[in-house]
Amino acid sequence: MKYVLFIAVTIVFLFGVGGKAGANVGSEDSLVIRNIFSEALVSFESYENLRYLCKNIGGRLTGSESAENAVDWVFKILGEMNLNRVYKQEFPVRNWIRGDKEYAYAESRISGKKEFNVCALGVSEGTGDKGVMGRIIEVKSFDELKKLGRENIEGKIVFFNRAADQTGISTYNGYGGSVDQRVRGAIEAARYGAVGVVVRSATVSLDNFPHTGIMRYNDSIPRIPAIGISTMGADELSRMRTEDEELTFYFRTTCSQNPDVISHNVIGEIRGTEKPEEVILVGGHLDSWDLGEGAHDDGAGIVQSIEVLRLFQKLGIRPRHTLRMVAFMDEEIDQKGGRYYAEATKNEKHIAAIESDGGGFIPHGFSFSGTREQTEKLRIFKEFFTPYLIHYFEKGGGGVDISFLRNSGAALIGLVVDSQRYFDHHHSANDVFESVNRREMQMGAAAIAGLVYLIDKYEL
Amino acid sequence: MKYVLFIAVTIVFLFGVGGKAGANVGSEDSLVIRNIFSEALVSFESYENLRYLCKNIGGRLTGSESAENAVDWVFKILGEMNLNRVYKQEFPVRNWIRGDKEYAYAESRISGKKEFNVCALGVSEGTGDKGVMGRIIEVKSFDELKKLGRENIEGKIVFFNRAADQTGISTYNGYGGSVDQRVRGAIEAARYGAVGVVVRSATVSLDNFPHTGIMRYNDSIPRIPAIGISTMGADELSRMRTEDEELTFYFRTTCSQNPDVISHNVIGEIRGTEKPEEVILVGGHLDSWDLGEGAHDDGAGIVQSIEVLRLFQKLGIRPRHTLRMVAFMDEEIDQKGGRYYAEATKNEKHIAAIESDGGGFIPHGFSFSGTREQTEKLRIFKEFFTPYLIHYFEKGGGGVDISFLRNSGAALIGLVVDSQRYFDHHHSANDVFESVNRREMQMGAAAIAGLVYLIDKYEL
Repeated sequence: MKYVLFIAVTIVFLFGVGGKAGANVGSEDSLVIRNIFSEALVSFESYENLRYLCKNIGGRLTGSESAENAVDWVFKILGEMNLNRVYKQEFPVRNWIRGDKEYAYAESRISGKKEFNVCALGVSEGTGDKGVMGRIIEVKSFDELKKLGRENIEGKIVFFNRAADQTGISTYNGYGGSVDQRVRGAIEAARYGAVGVVVRSATVSLDNFPHTGIMRYNDSIPRIPAIGISTMGADELSRMRTEDEELTFYFRTTCSQNPDVISHNVIGEIRGTEKPEEVILVGGHLDSWDLGEGAHDDGAGIVQSIEVLRLFQKLGIRPRHTLRMVAFMDEEIDQKGGRYYAEATKNEKHIAAIESDGGGFIPHGFSFSGTREQTEKLRIFKEFFTPYLIHYFEKGGGGVDISFLRNSGAALIGLVVDSQRYFDHHHSANDVFESVNRREMQMGAAAIAGLVYLIDKYEL
Repeated sequence: MKYVLFIAVTIVFLFGVGGKAGANVGSEDSLVIRNIFSEALVSFESYENLRYLCKNIGGRLTGSESAENAVDWVFKILGEMNLNRVYKQEFPVRNWIRGDKEYAYAESRISGKKEFNVCALGVSEGTGDKGVMGRIIEVKSFDELKKLGRENIEGKIVFFNRAADQTGISTYNGYGGSVDQRVRGAIEAARYGAVGVVVRSATVSLDNFPHTGIMRYNDSIPRIPAIGISTMGADELSRMRTEDEELTFYFRTTCSQNPDVISHNVIGEIRGTEKPEEVILVGGHLDSWDLGEGAHDDGAGIVQSIEVLRLFQKLGIRPRHTLRMVAFMDEEIDQKGGRYYAEATKNEKHIAAIESDGGGFIPHGFSFSGTREQTEKLRIFKEFFTPYLIHYFEKGGGGVDISFLRNSGAALIGLVVDSQRYFDHHHSANDVFESVNRREMQMGAAAIAGLVYLIDKYEL
């Protein structure tokens, strides 16, 4: 397209909002928010932060040296920002180590041996050096497993191959409808004597990336090793299983569970001018899975949270309440960071907590929980964001890390971004810096900063 | 993020729309539109079409063999769809040939010689084998050029280096505010005796891709050669010019203007059951620039338009009016396809024409022009799309190709998609299949199909 048109967000349009949000809400606020967006869009600082986090630190699995490098880096960045307070919180976290590059193949009597690109699921037991081998049983649900029973499953490898539903407008529908296989597959298969599980990646993308992610064990059921396989790999494995009912599968993983290590949340604050004891929190999680660079999940949320502080400083907006940025550790495994933070701050007053953990995509709005008064006020703020094509202000989840503040009285708010591409990257080697668009991510940071500005000014 | 939440587009929500759109508009329509989106999201056919167009045909500059291959391919695809009519329109088009890979370097007395990745601008004259060399004069506006005057410019190479403004929420603002340098730079520089122009790419992206695009000459002013340089290249060239005021620049292009050749629009129709003589048009442009694969610009619009026909067929929706898909030729250069189509169909009645030419990104809605009655009705349809996070229904441009129908009485409608990433790809070697997300593109196709369904049922 060669022409010039569309969506001129004019000053007239900007002045046209406000009014309905209350007697004190007006065009001055619209202009502040416009300035926030403008500054976010012209700045490359946050994007360069993300580049550093992704390329110089990389994937940062909870408990790893890389995760502590990330802690040190955020601490340093915040330390250079002339904030009122920068500190860490310290707590023990799990130290699961992936070990060697995983190896797997299927052997068909019809088409021979074929290797598959797989990855151990998060906190899985390893197979040990010898690996595990067995006939493949393909199922699409736990019910199917139950019907097959121990006589068909014992000693075999269960292949969970239920695809993510594509029809949801949000890709979380597809993810949510298939991720039980990853989380509970090993427990359910081990009930009937399986020796391992292979799980189709929980994504709406059809590609060659295996996705990892947390899985769980149950203390009363044997802990069997579990791997993820890409969606295209799963289709191929299913095809091979169809051509040869006695298809055998082998995989080797050398993951290990190790003693807990100490890790940290990192926190930076701009002290409030009027009510410094009341906190507005913005945050994301600093840990990531180890296969990629943790760019969308959740490097974006980290650099956006830092960016919110920078935007306030750069524009000279002095918050009435304390504006606190938290880089949470261990979201992906045990949420020790979120839990620790909530416990450590239980005597503080939080008026709102905003988490960005949906990737650095174009923002649609916010989902939130809180009292009726809080949620109604948040809905009213919507008018300030529609010039930016940000329309979604609905009740819903806030975020994993801030969920532990659910009894704090704070409104819990999640940045809602477009989800179409999220699971193309999520928990896979494809979650890299290059997949994040600077302007999309900055639009998200500006949306958060704008909302913080309104909450700080009008409270909830 | 590991959790499951957000934006469940429930049936309740879907049934909640409608009502206001008129006595006959209700939940039945909501369900049809839901089915359109579901079918679009589960299907990979359109995306595979785009892959073929990009990878097997590739860039398809108007007048090239590749453009005719694309014509044949669309004709074949439509021919296999069991449509009521598939045909071509034939007309002459320009045949500009890029020639050899362009070559350019700057030579500084301080930092020596540095090569730059450049591209001839569309329809530029070539320099000839020997190339062109001269001192570099950097300007950011035509006013600056005027002030410098002939005494400073004659015999030199003018470097237009005004960057695209980043602050617009739509990236078209930045593009529109800088693209004059590309379109008219050679004319303005030649007025004062320049021997060539180098133009900073009209994009909000900071990268190493030079972008091409149409430029114009003026018959009364010498036709001097023009090249595009990437935004990072432009920054570097500017730095070198700052360190050495006598910086020289050389470039060589071998583009050539050749006799017109015959090319085509390709058209496919589902005949209307009640008013077959009245047409609802959906379209995009089949030609593209030659540096990339024309994926977003405008392969996406082509395969989406085909997809609209497929969705109607697959869901058994028989349109009352004739539903016509048009693959327009020559949008990028002289719009011969759009012009020819409008002339050839001037005795037909079009009730609406919808163009997709903003890339295969997540749709925000539609911009449109027409009578007050038409635009008010289109606004009412918005309610059917908000469950899909599609909110933008405003007056504005429809599209270049359909603009020639402006006196036809048809409502002219453009699909408005998120623009943040568009100019990362636009007219550059980076406009490739891999940059298009299947679901984002399919959401756009579904939005168009849903709107066609409503227009067909309720008219405007």
